[in-house]
Amino acid sequence: MDSENSKSSPQPQKWVKLNVGGNIFMTSRETLLRDSNSMLARLVSESDLISDKDDTGAYLIDRDPKYFSPILNYLRHGKLILDAGIAAEGVLEEAEFYNITHLISLVKEQIKIRDQHTIVDNKQ
Amino acid sequence: MDSENSKSSPQPQKWVKLNVGGNIFMTSRETLLRDSNSMLARLVSESDLISDKDDTGAYLIDRDPKYFSPILNYLRHGKLILDAGIAAEGVLEEAEFYNITHLISLVKEQIKIRDQHTIVDNKQ
Amino acid sequence: MDSENSKSSPQPQKWVKLNVGGNIFMTSRETLLRDSNSMLARLVSESDLISDKDDTGAYLIDRDPKYFSPILNYLRHGKLILDAGIAAEGVLEEAEFYNITHLISLVKEQIKIRDQHTIVDNKQ
Amino acid sequence: MDSENSKSSPQPQKWVKLNVGGNIFMTSRETLLRDSNSMLARLVSESDLISDKDDTGAYLIDRDPKYFSPILNYLRHGKLILDAGIAAEGVLEEAEFYNITHLISLVKEQIKIRDQHTIVDNKQ
Amino acid sequence: MDSENSKSSPQPQKWVKLNVGGNIFMTSRETLLRDSNSMLARLVSESDLISDKDDTGAYLIDRDPKYFSPILNYLRHGKLILDAGIAAEGVLEEAEFYNITHLISLVKEQIKIRDQHTIVDNKQ
Repeated sequence: MDSENSKSSPQPQKWVKLNVGGNIFMTSRETLLRDSNSMLARLVSESDLISDKDDTGAYLIDRDPKYFSPILNYLRHGKLILDAGIAAEGVLEEAEFYNITHLISLVKEQIKIRDQHTIVDNKQ
Repeated sequence: MDSENSKSSPQPQKWVKLNVGGNIFMTSRETLLRDSNSMLARLVSESDLISDKDDTGAYLIDRDPKYFSPILNYLRHGKLILDAGIAAEGVLEEAEFYNITHLISLVKEQIKIRDQHTIVDNKQ
Repeated sequence: MDSENSKSSPQPQKWVKLNVGGNIFMTSRETLLRDSNSMLARLVSESDLISDKDDTGAYLIDRDPKYFSPILNYLRHGKLILDAGIAAEGVLEEAEFYNITHLISLVKEQIKIRDQHTIVDNKQ
Repeated sequence: MDSENSKSSPQPQKWVKLNVGGNIFMTSRETLLRDSNSMLARLVSESDLISDKDDTGAYLIDRDPKYFSPILNYLRHGKLILDAGIAAEGVLEEAEFYNITHLISLVKEQIKIRDQHTIVDNKQ
Repeated sequence: MDSENSKSSPQPQKWVKLNVGGNIFMTSRETLLRDSNSMLARLVSESDLISDKDDTGAYLIDRDPKYFSPILNYLRHGKLILDAGIAAEGVLEEAEFYNITHLISLVKEQIKIRDQHTIVDNKQ
């Protein structure tokens, strides 16, 4: 399908609009394709995943937009960055949903480190 | 009117737009139907709850959008995830409003754990 | 003008759009009428308060949207819920502006409790 | 052009739309005029400051919207209210940019108090 | 196409709209040009960097909007201001992406200071 589609529109769209739970994210196709096993790569490879779009042409994803930011940032630059107020468990849930294997282990590691610190604090 | 609409479109819409207190949430009908006793399931089952819509076709709900996110996420993946800055009491209030029984007990449990920790802290 | 409008539409609108400092809030007339002495009840009772509207028909209120959420939530469910990051003084300022007597005392109480805790902390 | 506009509408607009760094703020002319020496008063007095507007007629201001809220709130009710997560230095920077003399000293005072507390904490 | 556009409008636009990851930022060309080696200066100098625009004419940048604010503020007033909830690592990542040399060292310094404080806290 990708090859067929690329015939009629030889260059697939470089930019992709996502509607995650009602919020709009703008990113590149290249970013979404970074982890080829992820659900996001499958979303834009237009082969095995049929996805709905909203009236503005954004792919509809039934997930929370807040926890999606660290996911997308990981795909952009390869690092896990969590702000203080964001529950790591919320990001883990999304990493699993989008099936980004390396990110899943990064978040789990971060949760382990955080919990070890908390135990030390409680012992004091 | 609703019944007339359901005649012309025998398949109910897969995606549902909610206007919670002025913010737009996009989710699937499937997610909202997950807890069949909840007000959200009744909202989209189009049988016993007549609900108003805004001009964009989103169901109007007179509640706070911020505390709605953990509610919707619970329906999406079955877990309660609370960010550090979010008052659990705010989420409890919504879980009760939307009548999601299991979530109500999850939030109450979390509040109990939090308060036990705070008491320990105060004793130090 | 307002009276003329009420002639043509004998039933006042059930839903009310507010433009608080540039952000849109959607709520019901019923919620805004809950405290009959408040400025918000007067806003929608269409009798003694002439208020401007923006081009989308939302009532214009020259206040901060962030501190308005706990105000509106109080009118929705009768409780004061403050997130960790929100300055209670900001909410007090709004409770006074909107003239919601019971909420004013609830916020003052919360501030008193918070300050007692802080004093204890400082003494340690 | 501005003068021509003021001829056709002798009464200046009561409500003012500001586009601060891409976010829309809605406030009254009266609020912006509160500190007559501020850049915001000059912006709406239509005499000595020619300012650009976006396509929706909002005054364009090349500053951060997040730190603008406490500035605008100060003009609304005369108090400085800072949420826990907001860097006071960010607000100071804006108070100086908008040239609101009394607010500048209020923020500086708050920073001094905060830093004294921090020093005490470090000494423990 | 870009060169053709610059012929018809000899004076480049004073205001620039950026679509960073789906959020709109409004700033001046002057601000973006402040660090001449940065990717943002190259974006608006219309010489060596061809960039895509969205349908509203905003430059598309495939990065997180939240961490972009401190970047843009640095270009506006020359200081690094980080709110409590924002991970400095997230800002560092962006400072490196946008190639703003002095800001990179400012953020690194801040991270060093923060980590020293944390070590002291752990030793107690």
